[in-house]
Formats: sequence, C-alpha cells, structure tokens
Amino acid sequence: MFKTRITVRMSDCDGMRHVNNAVYYTYFEEGMREIARLFTPDLDLNDFHVIMASSHCDFLRQTTYRDQITVYSWIGAIAHSSFNVEHAVADEKRRWHARGRITLVQFDYRQEKAVPLSENMKRILLQHRQGPEGVPELRGCQHSLS
Amino acid sequence: MFKTRITVRMSDCDGMRHVNNAVYYTYFEEGMREIARLFTPDLDLNDFHVIMASSHCDFLRQTTYRDQITVYSWIGAIAHSSFNVEHAVADEKRRWHARGRITLVQFDYRQEKAVPLSENMKRILLQHRQGPEGVPELRGCQHSLS
Amino acid sequence: MFKTRITVRMSDCDGMRHVNNAVYYTYFEEGMREIARLFTPDLDLNDFHVIMASSHCDFLRQTTYRDQITVYSWIGAIAHSSFNVEHAVADEKRRWHARGRITLVQFDYRQEKAVPLSENMKRILLQHRQGPEGVPELRGCQHSLS
Amino acid sequence: MFKTRITVRMSDCDGMRHVNNAVYYTYFEEGMREIARLFTPDLDLNDFHVIMASSHCDFLRQTTYRDQITVYSWIGAIAHSSFNVEHAVADEKRRWHARGRITLVQFDYRQEKAVPLSENMKRILLQHRQGPEGVPELRGCQHSLS
Repeated sequence: MFKTRITVRMSDCDGMRHVNNAVYYTYFEEGMREIARLFTPDLDLNDFHVIMASSHCDFLRQTTYRDQITVYSWIGAIAHSSFNVEHAVADEKRRWHARGRITLVQFDYRQEKAVPLSENMKRILLQHRQGPEGVPELRGCQHSLS
Repeated sequence: MFKTRITVRMSDCDGMRHVNNAVYYTYFEEGMREIARLFTPDLDLNDFHVIMASSHCDFLRQTTYRDQITVYSWIGAIAHSSFNVEHAVADEKRRWHARGRITLVQFDYRQEKAVPLSENMKRILLQHRQGPEGVPELRGCQHSLS
Repeated sequence: MFKTRITVRMSDCDGMRHVNNAVYYTYFEEGMREIARLFTPDLDLNDFHVIMASSHCDFLRQTTYRDQITVYSWIGAIAHSSFNVEHAVADEKRRWHARGRITLVQFDYRQEKAVPLSENMKRILLQHRQGPEGVPELRGCQHSLS
Repeated sequence: MFKTRITVRMSDCDGMRHVNNAVYYTYFEEGMREIARLFTPDLDLNDFHVIMASSHCDFLRQTTYRDQITVYSWIGAIAHSSFNVEHAVADEKRRWHARGRITLVQFDYRQEKAVPLSENMKRILLQHRQGPEGVPELRGCQHSLS
C-alpha cells in the first residue's frame, strides 16, 4: 500500500468551495507515482509504459482547502496486461472522502498496443495488495441510486 | 440528448501528449451545463442544487490538442433523489474517445443532505433519455481486464 | 488580431466563485492557437517551436461561470528571436476583464536554445499588430499600488 | 520569507513535457498560503480578504515531473491597500526555474472594493521582506527581447 500526502491547492477547489470532482482523479494519479516508478524508475515522461483504461470514483465527503488529506493506493485484480489500482482518500481524522479504482494497462505508446505483464512484474505488484483498514467498498457501476 | 462542442486546450494535455484522464471529467461537467441549468436557470454558483455521488469513465481512444471533440450527454436511470447522466466523447470522424457515467444527487448545500426529485423534474429529465446512435456500452466496474 | 471565444468551465472557477487567476493564462494560451499554427501548421505537439519567456496579467474585473468571454490577441514588439503577444479579455458587454502580455521565443526544444526569427516570419507577425479599440494599457511591472 | 515545497503533479505538465506556464501561478498561489492566513487564519474560503490585481512571471528553466521544487515567497512594496508578493521557484540543486511578482489588494468581496491595510497589518507584512540569497531580478515588463 502506498500512502501519499496531498496538499489541497486553492485551484483544486471550484465554485462550490470544495475540491472539484475531476481533481480526485489527479490525486489518484499522484497516489500512483510509485507504481509508475515500477515501470519507469526515473519517471521520464518520454519513456512511460502504462495507460489508463478506465477510472471510477465514489464521492463520500466534500473536501475543502483546509483539509489535510492522504491517498491510499493498493493493487487490486491483476490480469494479462492490465491491473487495477484501488484508491481511498482520507482526511486527518481518518474520515473517508473518496473511494476509487483505476484500471491501468501496460502499453507501448509507439506501437499503440497493450503489452503483457511479465511474471516478475506481477510478483512485484502482488506485494502491494494490502489496503487500509476499514476502507469502504466501491459502489457498483449500477450505482445504488437513492 | 445534449451535444457540447469542446475545444481541447493545450493545458488539457499532459506529458503523454494526450488529454489527461482527469480532464475527461471536466468535459463531462461541461456536457452537463444544460442539465445544471434545469436546476439553476442562471447558473449562479451561489445557488447550486446538485452534487456528484460518483463518476466513471472508460478511455477508448487518446485525444490530442488537434482533435475536434463533442460530448454527448443524456439521462440514464432516475431514482428518488438521484439520477445518472450518461456521456460519450466523439471526434469529428465520430470515433468514440470516452464513455462515462455520472451519478448526480439533488442536494441542499446548506443542510448538506439529499433532496427528493419532484415529479415535474423527473418528467423534464425523462425528455433527455435518448443517447447517440452506435454508442458503446459502459464497461462494468469489474473491468474486463485483458 | 485574433479573436477567440472562450467557454468558461466550472473547473476554471475557484472557491471565490470567479475564474482563478492562473486560468487567464490558459485563456491567453488558447488565444495564441493561431499564432502557434504559424510555426506548427498542424499543431503537432511533437513539433513545437515556441517557448514562453515571461507572462503578465492585470486583473480588471472578476469573471464568472456565466460570462461569455472573448480573448483578443495581437502582436506587440518583435525582436531577434522573440516577440510579444498582447492579450485582452472582454465579456459580451465589451467590459474588459483582463489585460496581458506574453513574450514568446522561437525555440529548438532538442538543442534547448533560441532560434532567430526569419524575415518572412517577422513579416507574417507584423500583419497581426492591430489590437482592439479602447483596450486599456498594460500596467507597468512597478504596479501603481493603490 | 515563506518556503513552500511543491510536488509537481503529472497533470501540471503539458504536451511539452514540462510544467505548463499557467501552473507556475498556481505554485505562487500555494506559496502565499501563509500570507492568506494572515488575513484569514482558518483559510475559510467564505471569509477571504485579498484579491489579485496583477501577476507576472519570468520563466527561467523548464520544470519536469521529476523535479523537486520549492517556492520562496516574500513581501515586496507595500502601499495603501495593496502590496506585492515576490516569488522565486528553485529546484533541489538551487537552480532558479521562475521568478514572479503578484500584487494583492485587501478586498471586501461583498462591497467589491479595496480596503486600506491597517498599520498593524503593514507591520506584520514587513516582517517577511527578506528574499532568498542570489535570487535573480524580475525582468521589466518592457521585456528585454532578445
């Protein structure tokens, strides 16, 4: 599990005076920095090897400029060339603000096609499967509308 | 169905030279401008009545600074106080770049609680249930990992 | 002079319920799309030839999500390898919201050095020196503090 | 002088694979968090008392996703109701990436007018006039075009 402290920026907040919905995905992206580093150790953007296939976020609590938040990121399901990264955002009182899931694909940007994960990479990913205690389940995509 | 022409901004693109994943949610948000107007006719941010409960996006094709794109937005499932807005992003050759779903809740920002949708509002929403032809299905949250 | 219609996005606004200060520079950047095209006709980001040396903006009037704004962009001073692009942002009632100046340098990203402007490019730039009528002067950098 | 460590986000970088020009102003804004706190101790966005009158940035060196940067922010000229905040961005090798200046005005958002700075506030601001050693001068607005 990776823990990433995020500083909420003034410009992350929208006219509702809370963090804009799209910005949680930016926080997830920052939560995946160490995962990106598994594929590109020096984080050189000219040499990136993963692409996003889909993303999902449940918004559980509004986040403000004053909040101190942490993104927890851990590995979920692993498949042939893709894997899920699970995310949860908590504040300093450990209240959950968001819960997300990103599907990443190992990708060759030049040939524009997926690349199978090596057994070694799968082994490394499996070392990060532990999520934080008490984290809420992701809601289904058939959102339980209320 | 609402059709919104989007101008891709230079700053929407990230180091991969394509539109950053989080920015698709900004495009969906722009696609919902007319839906926000159903609740707040003058778009005054001091008087907003919807909040996002969750969001999802499948990334189908990379978008670049040169692309001319359109967001198609239409109403999906409707429940007691919430409803889904379905989204799809296409380029000028009508290739699909993204497919999304946002769950919105009618919300009282002062009391911080959900507000039931009136029958009249449900009727209005139902007028916008038609999506574009040939639009791909949303992948499940149990992403078919490949 | 280039006129660029800008759609204010919800996420352009910050907690003050007006367009965030940094976003005006994004608007200026969009106002320079046709100027970028003079150097890179197909806007391919792999083949860009200008870099920003400095930027300045005077904020004259708050902009909200409801405003319909236009960026006016025209060429100012031209030098050996650099030139100024002047900008002004107006709303639909032609009230000035912002006034800016960007210094661009013709640049070789591979060698990381400035490239002199050809006489032909200078001639082309000179065709766009006309600004809008009634546009306010840029304040000095020794801002007239009040 | 305030020192603010900034984490460069993936989404701060644009298609040129460096931090987008507008994002430096976001960094300056983060550099002013403690200055905002002088006016609004709890950073409640409903109770903000400063507005930006103008901003300027010289871009000295490209910043990448891999850089560790710090914003140095200190008080410049002080006038009746406004004051300058000087900024400089350096990397971990203390190379200067940007140099900026923001003019802030004490502002009443309800009445939309400037408010004179109290003598006490001026005294507090004066305690933060010291900038970092070796910081470059701001270029004039009559940019020395080269």
